[in-house]
Amino acid sequence: MQIIGVMGPGEQATVSDQQVAYDLGYQIAQTGWVLLTGGRNTGVMDAASRGAKAAGGLTIGILPTHDRRNMSDAVDLAIVTDLGNARNNINVLSSDVVIACGMGVGTTSEIALAIKAGKPVILLNTSLEFQQFFRHLSHQSVFVAESVTAAISIVQQQLNSDWQK
Amino acid sequence: MQIIGVMGPGEQATVSDQQVAYDLGYQIAQTGWVLLTGGRNTGVMDAASRGAKAAGGLTIGILPTHDRRNMSDAVDLAIVTDLGNARNNINVLSSDVVIACGMGVGTTSEIALAIKAGKPVILLNTSLEFQQFFRHLSHQSVFVAESVTAAISIVQQQLNSDWQK
Amino acid sequence: MQIIGVMGPGEQATVSDQQVAYDLGYQIAQTGWVLLTGGRNTGVMDAASRGAKAAGGLTIGILPTHDRRNMSDAVDLAIVTDLGNARNNINVLSSDVVIACGMGVGTTSEIALAIKAGKPVILLNTSLEFQQFFRHLSHQSVFVAESVTAAISIVQQQLNSDWQK
Amino acid sequence: MQIIGVMGPGEQATVSDQQVAYDLGYQIAQTGWVLLTGGRNTGVMDAASRGAKAAGGLTIGILPTHDRRNMSDAVDLAIVTDLGNARNNINVLSSDVVIACGMGVGTTSEIALAIKAGKPVILLNTSLEFQQFFRHLSHQSVFVAESVTAAISIVQQQLNSDWQK
Repeated sequence: MQIIGVMGPGEQATVSDQQVAYDLGYQIAQTGWVLLTGGRNTGVMDAASRGAKAAGGLTIGILPTHDRRNMSDAVDLAIVTDLGNARNNINVLSSDVVIACGMGVGTTSEIALAIKAGKPVILLNTSLEFQQFFRHLSHQSVFVAESVTAAISIVQQQLNSDWQK
Repeated sequence: MQIIGVMGPGEQATVSDQQVAYDLGYQIAQTGWVLLTGGRNTGVMDAASRGAKAAGGLTIGILPTHDRRNMSDAVDLAIVTDLGNARNNINVLSSDVVIACGMGVGTTSEIALAIKAGKPVILLNTSLEFQQFFRHLSHQSVFVAESVTAAISIVQQQLNSDWQK
Repeated sequence: MQIIGVMGPGEQATVSDQQVAYDLGYQIAQTGWVLLTGGRNTGVMDAASRGAKAAGGLTIGILPTHDRRNMSDAVDLAIVTDLGNARNNINVLSSDVVIACGMGVGTTSEIALAIKAGKPVILLNTSLEFQQFFRHLSHQSVFVAESVTAAISIVQQQLNSDWQK
Repeated sequence: MQIIGVMGPGEQATVSDQQVAYDLGYQIAQTGWVLLTGGRNTGVMDAASRGAKAAGGLTIGILPTHDRRNMSDAVDLAIVTDLGNARNNINVLSSDVVIACGMGVGTTSEIALAIKAGKPVILLNTSLEFQQFFRHLSHQSVFVAESVTAAISIVQQQLNSDWQK
């Protein structure tokens, strides 16, 4: 099973971040991939998980806490880490491709850890400054998507190129 | 979805540990639960995962390494932690009930962490000394099962009593 | 600098555990070693750290929490992990020798992780059942000390034998 | 004891990064603070640790590996985490103030985690783009220093303002 990680702001997510995340989760599930998020009941994590469930998909949540108290209802499988933000590294290592939806401090750490781990990263719903910064950090493994559909097709290319290795 | 964790020796597993683990994985999947293990391609982890797949179940592997190189083929969803043995705590926190199948040093750490986390623990295919030691450590949350069928029915009781809380 | 880890119960520590731990911390510092504990302001961690400070030693505390709120006053250097009990593995990996003072669930997990990591483990102030269980798990790397002085001299032997490798 | 964390590139560090890091480690130690780094024998970690030792200071290294094999000789106290890059979060949580010296992917993740943890972050030897990106992410807690001396004086201000809380 192929796992696509969607990272993005929690409490700080904009309305647009959440709309895009919902749509993204929906299309990830529809394509037949498993969705992985940070698992909490807020922001991009929650919206992407709800989208994936609406399309009948399977969702994993990598929780920072020691129990399931603040878990999104749309998470099927909770991985309870009790690692705080150290769990960000598990999010990226467990994803075949990482999609950052929206911008924020936690998301920045996840994009950086993903680049470090050699994972392809797709930026969605971010500013030009944000895109330039990360494209500058890693020219080869950071991609910018203009829409959810574009993001899905970059994921497909990346999974195929992995396949050929 | 309810997640049942099966912990036990890797390279040190006996033939009996592996037979019991296969059967246990099979019955866990048949009952409709998700199986969680340490994910490596050896010993109890591998046997339980293979059993669960033979029954058409879903399997999660919490890998200690930074990639999927030594993963069991019977793992559907790999959580790649790169935490070494610190990942043992994630194994127990993510399981609704923990079953220890066989004995060993890593398994001992997992049983202890499970008790600490307040999770019910079932001991299967262990010696009397091992059982007495852990029953002594926690009288209320450690159970001894004489067979796979007995283990499954203790899991059922525990999930029901959780439900009533 | 050589680091000696002292592990043992927190809130569940007996008066005797704490007296022995104080004395142990004192003698570790007096011998010129650095003391490492789990860092909280309770039980064996706190008592050992206070003993070490009374002898003018240096103390490290590996905290499970995300800040220093429940840190022992006798900790000089706080390593703030926010890992919960997953930090137990750091405790043992960072120690040249591990001394378990008293018995408990957390201590059991630390002894098991120490054996797994190939670290020498010394049991102090424990029951015969506890000693037999761990000596059975690892005959070569688990030692029983009848007194603090005996524990110190086992540490010395172990550090010397490491040296010769 | 107050702990100042110095983060920066390892193998990718420039000559200038290393010269600045050496000087920074030296002045941190001279001021009486403990130096914390990622502990490996390369780049900014190694140079800062060597600088601190030249000034007679105390150095902590938070190693990503499961043993001390690639540790800098200038590390006094090794914390062996076996957490890979998840240890970055420990680096920032254990530091009273974080100084990023030079730029890179790992450093980016550490700055982001530091901001998330509410730690003051000082940027040294970085580009204008890098500074603007992080100042944009967190206006209040990210500072730019034009020299090692300036960085030291920002640390002093931050420790004092903490003190007043």
